[in-house]
Amino acid sequence: MMKELPLAKVYQLLEPGPVVLLTTARKDRANVMTMSWHMMVEFEPPLVACVVSNANFSFAALRTTRECVIAIPSVKMAEKVVAVGNCSGRDVDKFAAFGLTTLPGEHVTAPLIAECFANLECKVADTRLVNTYNLFVLEVKKAWTDTKQKNPKTIHHRGYGTFVVDGETIRLKSRMP
Amino acid sequence: MMKELPLAKVYQLLEPGPVVLLTTARKDRANVMTMSWHMMVEFEPPLVACVVSNANFSFAALRTTRECVIAIPSVKMAEKVVAVGNCSGRDVDKFAAFGLTTLPGEHVTAPLIAECFANLECKVADTRLVNTYNLFVLEVKKAWTDTKQKNPKTIHHRGYGTFVVDGETIRLKSRMP
Repeated sequence: MMKELPLAKVYQLLEPGPVVLLTTARKDRANVMTMSWHMMVEFEPPLVACVVSNANFSFAALRTTRECVIAIPSVKMAEKVVAVGNCSGRDVDKFAAFGLTTLPGEHVTAPLIAECFANLECKVADTRLVNTYNLFVLEVKKAWTDTKQKNPKTIHHRGYGTFVVDGETIRLKSRMP
Repeated sequence: MMKELPLAKVYQLLEPGPVVLLTTARKDRANVMTMSWHMMVEFEPPLVACVVSNANFSFAALRTTRECVIAIPSVKMAEKVVAVGNCSGRDVDKFAAFGLTTLPGEHVTAPLIAECFANLECKVADTRLVNTYNLFVLEVKKAWTDTKQKNPKTIHHRGYGTFVVDGETIRLKSRMP
């Protein structure tokens, strides 16, 4: 189901700014949160910066294990994605509560999410800005896409439960990768 | 034309991941580049992380002056935005070449762009990751929106001249700001 994606193509998944899910695993307990504050930092090996608030249950797991998975949901999962963001892993097993299927990764203990059209196995590469901004730099070690999900539309957070869904695609002659 | 936007609302502009323009000014010479690698870091005062490659002419200006403007174009400017990204300020005055109108800011020497629906005056707040990743942390000092541009649609880069335009807006019951 999940097919490997060349690491050089990872930026095409994250650069448009989709709302993503972030999974962690600590002491045999996996968790998942919703995240919108992320950006590409380098093409290859792909580096991704993200902000995980220290108010989130996932923060300690990410800082301690230095591993996570960024899973990218399509708009079909929008209600689940918001529900994941509305509660904490301190109180609930969100995978069970929201019917998210975990799959094992190859490089990290944090699980992939089978329902997402892409999953990025990440290791923490830089923590210099964690104490000041909760900003982690991650390196993507392996990327997976579900090739059965054709042209998935992502969602983009505008605040307070408002999301913009991907619309039309336009092509212009750019020299940029 | 440009009306002040409360700083607490700035994240709603950048969190969805739009392609933006970044202006700088050095030695009385302004420049503008196209940028997609940015993210919110804090709500208020708004902090924004961005990557400006040291291959870009804007890099030295940003590092030296520690000031810039992030200007957000709607899809109506898509061709100009790509054209700005296809050339360098080393060779051309891009404002003149592409018919972009500059407006003075209040906190920075870098110009606002009148045709963009939002402009964020920024000061560099942290340079610890500049040498390693070309990653700057900016603080937004003042935000402006053009209230005449109603419901502007932004563009999101998918690589090699492919852009996704904002589509429909959906609303879900989120507890997140």
